[in-house]
Amino acid sequence: RALKMSENGALPRGGKVLTVDTMNANVKKVDYAVRGPIVQRAVQIEKELKEGVKKPFEEVIKANIGDAHAMGQRPITFFRQVMALCTYPQLLDDNKFPEDAKNRARRILQSCGGNSIGAYTTSQGIECVRHDVANYIQRRDGGIPSDPDNIYLTTGASDGIVTILKLLTAGEGRTRTGVMISIPQYPLYSASIAELGAVQVNYYLNEEKCWSLDISELQRSLQAAREHCNPRVLCIINPGNPTGQVQSRQCIEDVIQFAAKENLFLMADEVYQDNVYAEGCEFHSFKKVLFEMGPEYSSKVELVSFHSTSKCYMGECGFRGGYMEVINMDPEVKAQLTKLVSVRLCPPAPGQALMDLVVNSPKPGEPSYQTFMMERTAILSALAEKAKLTEEILNTVPGIRCNPVQGAMYSFPCITLPERAINEAKAKGQAPDMFYCMKLLEETGICLVPGSGFGQREGTYHFRMTILPPTDKLKILLNKLKEFHQKFTQQYS
Amino acid sequence: RALKMSENGALPRGGKVLTVDTMNANVKKVDYAVRGPIVQRAVQIEKELKEGVKKPFEEVIKANIGDAHAMGQRPITFFRQVMALCTYPQLLDDNKFPEDAKNRARRILQSCGGNSIGAYTTSQGIECVRHDVANYIQRRDGGIPSDPDNIYLTTGASDGIVTILKLLTAGEGRTRTGVMISIPQYPLYSASIAELGAVQVNYYLNEEKCWSLDISELQRSLQAAREHCNPRVLCIINPGNPTGQVQSRQCIEDVIQFAAKENLFLMADEVYQDNVYAEGCEFHSFKKVLFEMGPEYSSKVELVSFHSTSKCYMGECGFRGGYMEVINMDPEVKAQLTKLVSVRLCPPAPGQALMDLVVNSPKPGEPSYQTFMMERTAILSALAEKAKLTEEILNTVPGIRCNPVQGAMYSFPCITLPERAINEAKAKGQAPDMFYCMKLLEETGICLVPGSGFGQREGTYHFRMTILPPTDKLKILLNKLKEFHQKFTQQYS
Repeated sequence: RALKMSENGALPRGGKVLTVDTMNANVKKVDYAVRGPIVQRAVQIEKELKEGVKKPFEEVIKANIGDAHAMGQRPITFFRQVMALCTYPQLLDDNKFPEDAKNRARRILQSCGGNSIGAYTTSQGIECVRHDVANYIQRRDGGIPSDPDNIYLTTGASDGIVTILKLLTAGEGRTRTGVMISIPQYPLYSASIAELGAVQVNYYLNEEKCWSLDISELQRSLQAAREHCNPRVLCIINPGNPTGQVQSRQCIEDVIQFAAKENLFLMADEVYQDNVYAEGCEFHSFKKVLFEMGPEYSSKVELVSFHSTSKCYMGECGFRGGYMEVINMDPEVKAQLTKLVSVRLCPPAPGQALMDLVVNSPKPGEPSYQTFMMERTAILSALAEKAKLTEEILNTVPGIRCNPVQGAMYSFPCITLPERAINEAKAKGQAPDMFYCMKLLEETGICLVPGSGFGQREGTYHFRMTILPPTDKLKILLNKLKEFHQKFTQQYS
Repeated sequence: RALKMSENGALPRGGKVLTVDTMNANVKKVDYAVRGPIVQRAVQIEKELKEGVKKPFEEVIKANIGDAHAMGQRPITFFRQVMALCTYPQLLDDNKFPEDAKNRARRILQSCGGNSIGAYTTSQGIECVRHDVANYIQRRDGGIPSDPDNIYLTTGASDGIVTILKLLTAGEGRTRTGVMISIPQYPLYSASIAELGAVQVNYYLNEEKCWSLDISELQRSLQAAREHCNPRVLCIINPGNPTGQVQSRQCIEDVIQFAAKENLFLMADEVYQDNVYAEGCEFHSFKKVLFEMGPEYSSKVELVSFHSTSKCYMGECGFRGGYMEVINMDPEVKAQLTKLVSVRLCPPAPGQALMDLVVNSPKPGEPSYQTFMMERTAILSALAEKAKLTEEILNTVPGIRCNPVQGAMYSFPCITLPERAINEAKAKGQAPDMFYCMKLLEETGICLVPGSGFGQREGTYHFRMTILPPTDKLKILLNKLKEFHQKFTQQYS
């Protein structure tokens, strides 16, 4: 028996059953920089500050993550009113709440089992919410139809993205699914690809042209990947994370054409669709462009688009609300998708309700309309202002070069690091931009994510910084950063 | 090029990229009966009824899933008050809300980024909630310490279970991880094992002895499994789903001893810990028993216990709240677990807040205490009554044999099916109990899940029925079922 046990890989008595040597090897390969070592250190420093340890700063500023409320952004009043009404329906008798909020809450509750958001919803999500999502998409895309049966509500956009990648992962060795992702990318993609054991296929965005996407680079990347795997999926983030670019309509058309020609499944991460700031830039959904290209494309190209309650002007990250729309998915695969999501029963009902409000916000003439528009506009204009401010101040620093933040919530500037700093980092086994960001954190309390966590061209260095802090705080942060960069450059030159 | 593409498994132009032939093969193997074909048909029938199609019944009764609110159970007032306050903090100025509710809400909000449940929380969950969970466990287990660092908040219990199974899945062929699960089981387990490509290892509960767990059967199952895989995990559901048994303290001790001897990682699904009805039965947590067995065990056996906001007296399924406590997990593995959960950012914050209220419910002397206790007791006594009623009525039916529903929310009676019915089902390619449940649904509107969806001994047939409908409705349901069974038996004899 003992022999057989060891043959089977069982551990000797007394040892742990589960160790890093006997655990899932794919999980070990997962990396997620946005909440990686630098953030863990930031949390530690916060504790030290609380305990009275003296630091050259008073507080840690977490500019590492797109977490609007944590940065002081206030929730949209209407959304929270409806959510409170859904949560505690006794408030429906309270005349402090506007009628339109009450109507929305009643409508959502009527679609819930036992009129409670404490009931499980259907696996695909509450039916009336999926209808509202479809209507929203149709309005957004100038009337191109959207079918509620193609809408799946999700636990944030991340959940949807992982689910679709899971469906697509198949084959072994040279036939293993390759997933094309932009570099720089949002590390959910690389993490999920690693966890699923799919093959990550990099295509580089063109930093010189404001992080635009070149078809020739897609072609190069695809061709190279076909030597060792089966690239089947092309992921696009637009507006870009971490790079903040907004894709032109022409570029989207080119990408769709490319996907059609090369038989690629398209995944469009469009969670920043309301976050467009730069003049001349506009959000074009992949769905809309696809359908405008005519039936040759619109009847064929497989596309999934993702959205979320976490970004745009809402910033309701904690609710984990989201949806995806699947286009041209094989009906049998769709049945498999529905079955797969049913195992987890349903996405959180409060997140679903919140998603409903985002796609069915107050209409002109409704009592909450004016306040809603005021709040929404204030948030989006402040973001536009901060996007510009960030670019401007960063570009005054010798050794920092920052593309315009056309959209989303981040700047991803290129930083020049002195040779000596690079060598010292390497001697410590650290990525040079991690070395830089760690020093920044220790000296100023500013928490950023090094570019190496998102991917970047060999020999270039970056960091991602959110533009979310309130304007006055952002200014202080940017000037501290400027000062630090100058000092750092001097110190290592 | 064309040749190379086909070598790599790319599809011919014009076909779909993603088809059932080219999708993830593990996903295809996933089955989840609780929301399977019978429920899809039930939803269809509901639509037909709405459209005016005549049926021999007026409504579909979904007794297929443990969804308390959908069955008319009212949420706990205190929980919803605090949740409303957290959602819309302007209500903190409202004197309609009791002070203890306001204090809980303030405390939760203070632990949230920007004082908003719309902010991301830390990946492991809000710190003060994890502290409250640890305190709850410590109280529950008679003072045995619990460390907040070992608590991970989850998106319902399902999320935690899948995450731990994911960590444990490794090896190939004969060294592939085997996961021991009871038969009958809750199909989340078989579904996740299939999705992860782990090996399902069945051990049978003893129906003759009220679904108890025999160590000799564990031993048989383990030995057999070691011939073809590496069984490393033993999953226990207590109180049992779908079988409703409550494990004795002695049995839990025996299981722990077995796990220690055989180097098995223990997963204890304890989401029904407050749902114990039968006299002489008591809930014993695996953690408590483990620590009472002394350091030889408590310092060694790896255990994860799962809990949720969805069951017990709360029934708050829609919020997807839950936690897990990891005991004796290798620190390096724990770091990997923390990294893994960080990729999904955080569990839904409202679910975390609700979990907090469950583990930190009103205390004697607080203004909400009496109402809370009244509501809680009313729900739990009604469930106890319905558990008894279900057993009693079902056992009056010739051909139905029902074990006592000692705990949880389900009965899982054994049904005798006439040979002719079995043959007719087989001719249709259907499991005989699926055939039975489908007929029941079409003729009475009662939606149950066939035993084949949970697993059962070859040649036996069962169904799972929740005891959640209101007492008067439950009586009607049980009598309709009785009538149907008699008619069915007659028809096929």
